[in-house]
Amino acid sequence: MRDKVIFGTAFHTPARGRLEVLRDALIVVAGDGRITEVIAQGSGDHDAARARAAEQGRLVELGAGEVLLPGLVDLHIHAPQWPQLGKALDVPLEVWLRKHTFPLEARYADVAFARTIYDDLVSGLVANGTTTAVYFATIHMEASLALAEICRARGQRAFVGKVAMDDPDQCPPFYRDENAATALDEMRRFIEAVRAIAPGGDALVHPIITPRFIPSCTDELLAALGRLAAETGCLVQTHCSESDWEKSFVEQRFGRSDAAVLAGFGLLRQHTVLAHSNFVSDDDLDLIRARGAAVAHCPLSNAYFAEAVFPLREALDRNVRVGLGTDISGGHSPSLLDGCRHALMAGRMRQGGVDAGLPRDRRGVADARITVAEAFWLATAGGGEALGLDVGKFAAGCKFDALRIDVEADGSNVRVWPDLDEPEDVFQKIVLNAGRANIRQVWVDGVCVGGTAGDAGQRASVSR
Amino acid sequence: MRDKVIFGTAFHTPARGRLEVLRDALIVVAGDGRITEVIAQGSGDHDAARARAAEQGRLVELGAGEVLLPGLVDLHIHAPQWPQLGKALDVPLEVWLRKHTFPLEARYADVAFARTIYDDLVSGLVANGTTTAVYFATIHMEASLALAEICRARGQRAFVGKVAMDDPDQCPPFYRDENAATALDEMRRFIEAVRAIAPGGDALVHPIITPRFIPSCTDELLAALGRLAAETGCLVQTHCSESDWEKSFVEQRFGRSDAAVLAGFGLLRQHTVLAHSNFVSDDDLDLIRARGAAVAHCPLSNAYFAEAVFPLREALDRNVRVGLGTDISGGHSPSLLDGCRHALMAGRMRQGGVDAGLPRDRRGVADARITVAEAFWLATAGGGEALGLDVGKFAAGCKFDALRIDVEADGSNVRVWPDLDEPEDVFQKIVLNAGRANIRQVWVDGVCVGGTAGDAGQRASVSR
Ligand SMILES: [Zn+2]
Ligand SMILES: [Zn+2]
Repeated sequence: MRDKVIFGTAFHTPARGRLEVLRDALIVVAGDGRITEVIAQGSGDHDAARARAAEQGRLVELGAGEVLLPGLVDLHIHAPQWPQLGKALDVPLEVWLRKHTFPLEARYADVAFARTIYDDLVSGLVANGTTTAVYFATIHMEASLALAEICRARGQRAFVGKVAMDDPDQCPPFYRDENAATALDEMRRFIEAVRAIAPGGDALVHPIITPRFIPSCTDELLAALGRLAAETGCLVQTHCSESDWEKSFVEQRFGRSDAAVLAGFGLLRQHTVLAHSNFVSDDDLDLIRARGAAVAHCPLSNAYFAEAVFPLREALDRNVRVGLGTDISGGHSPSLLDGCRHALMAGRMRQGGVDAGLPRDRRGVADARITVAEAFWLATAGGGEALGLDVGKFAAGCKFDALRIDVEADGSNVRVWPDLDEPEDVFQKIVLNAGRANIRQVWVDGVCVGGTAGDAGQRASVSR
Repeated sequence: MRDKVIFGTAFHTPARGRLEVLRDALIVVAGDGRITEVIAQGSGDHDAARARAAEQGRLVELGAGEVLLPGLVDLHIHAPQWPQLGKALDVPLEVWLRKHTFPLEARYADVAFARTIYDDLVSGLVANGTTTAVYFATIHMEASLALAEICRARGQRAFVGKVAMDDPDQCPPFYRDENAATALDEMRRFIEAVRAIAPGGDALVHPIITPRFIPSCTDELLAALGRLAAETGCLVQTHCSESDWEKSFVEQRFGRSDAAVLAGFGLLRQHTVLAHSNFVSDDDLDLIRARGAAVAHCPLSNAYFAEAVFPLREALDRNVRVGLGTDISGGHSPSLLDGCRHALMAGRMRQGGVDAGLPRDRRGVADARITVAEAFWLATAGGGEALGLDVGKFAAGCKFDALRIDVEADGSNVRVWPDLDEPEDVFQKIVLNAGRANIRQVWVDGVCVGGTAGDAGQRASVSR
């Protein structure tokens, strides 16, 4: 039953950096999974609405130590790399790709293997509070469709991309599209098939056009995918200006930056998701902003593989859409709360610099740090805005994608002292220390799809 | 019963950066909590010893999905800041100290408050796998003794320091020692009292002489504490060259660096623990090495409060003793496995630099990154060597301080695929993704003192 009224205290960041505490509020969820009303405590209607919901058996009351958070929006995940989470990070990128990642991704020709891994992935991410996930799958039609089906079955909001990569010079022979024409044809069929799995504009699972990155695709394929995006209205995702090597490769091939090249091919569109974007110029940021595209900031993976930090503050100051990505498995954590912590640490280190031998004013980048509330906004409402989804905050018209957090759960590293902690403190403690032990229930579209409260009963209630 | 034989696979890093996999080994623990023998699988004695232990009811067999790790050694924790874990990190250091930290620490004049907090702290750290903890307490005698008692009662190996801070120019009136003479007298009585709680050279809990940092102490007190260290043989801990402000304060007062000043006062001794040390020079590192002192590297807190990164690689290359510290609550995580991840991320960012606008060769510091095995060594054997303790590895003569890790635990973010993962991969996955849900049992000195397997029965078994 999606139709419900939640009573309790909720934290959210409806605008960047602005924490709002909805203390003892009522959040009214309709049968379509959307919030119809948020009734503040003390407003005239509050007590009557609560009593009415209780009578109707629709009231969900949070317990002592429980608060509600918006669900987390992970803008960048390589689904096939799930078995590689937390390993092979000591090797250089080249070895990581050729020896580990491409051979692993090639295994998804085996759809049974894919189903096993993807089922574990989706349930693992839901348990970590990821209610919306943007996935790179592999080049394989069947396995990529299996991922979309699994997201739908497990009730996770998702964009799933069959990966396009056809350039024989840059892709290994055992793992690439045969040519641009077959890649295009399969991408078109993939879009249709995902839309058949989850029909309607309000569907939970969407296809997303996914050229791996510019170096792995021919001009012909990039142009064709740009036309396909315009024709189908599908969102687009790709990697952008991640590393020195990639940036200079694109510059040598096109004489322009990644963002400009993507724009030229019609791939830089409203809600296009650009992973990383570490080496973007101010002009690139302006272009990304003008086209309405968004950046998936992946601070952990950038530390491991890009040797660079995305200029987050500059992007935010220019009103570029930005959210967070775990970049599994270039990043080793499946938790987007960890992602918040990594974004905070990366911002601090970017500001403070890394070489104590330099004078202070030459060490870092001024104003690079972000606040806890900004980090959480990136992981929730910022990610929602990046994708053009009504998620990531508690407001009338938004989908009810939410986490029921128990700060007193067994195994909690969040320690709250009622005499010492204000609600803002509890919020920060949750963002900085909560883990999956604290996530009792996970709702997507008003449906409970996971959490420590036990998901056997919950799974059964996913009916769509 | 401490006397036992563990059968299973253990991972440890007996030398820096060198992972050793003890597959299906027997680890023989004597009645004094020390390992007497590690019997490799395939060695002549293995099967007979295993059968004998089983007959004697001394065999502990790890289950499927379980491995053994050495316990974690946290070299730097501010015990009174536990209620502040994960909050107030967005404010400047000055505000953090004056408005939050000093008032909080002053509350430990109330020993009942102290007992409540410290009991939660010690059990929380044990649950996160910290078998050895080096604590700053507060200036209060009773509360600091309570911390020592709680460590002993909960069976955590610990060094506990009553904090000395007597300079009226640098310490708030509501939170400082009255003068150098009373501070010295109380430190002496504290040492005697802790040694009475836990007598013997082999005791679980030790006092440690703890001048907060040079700026908060008068010359008279620093000199007296140096003499007290020589007289009592107590270890020393303090902060060293943490920030620009602190470094230049000491230089203006003494015309020398922190390390040189501490050496001059007799405080830079064998196994003195220096927190942070971000701004040490090569000469400082040589001096620290020559005196046999050690650095507690606290990468997370340095990102938040020091705007600097400790030159870890340089210190390791010079054979300076180094371990890790969480620096609760300047660092927001109580987990030293998190500490490994922060050290890895800090090393990566130090090498890659933080300003993509600079040319690559001017961005970072060459060779700054560390490996997963190096990070784990810092958190275990490195920390043990820093303190002069026989802990942090599985070898005859070492104390049996160990973690029983279950990679298949409910709520685990470690995902192991037997067909795909080598033992080295499992090790990396544990270091990068294990949390307290994975820590089934925690042993200190051969005694089980915590873990998810339930600690009611375990607590009872702590008999010392
Ligand atoms: Zn990626
Ligand atoms: Zn400290």
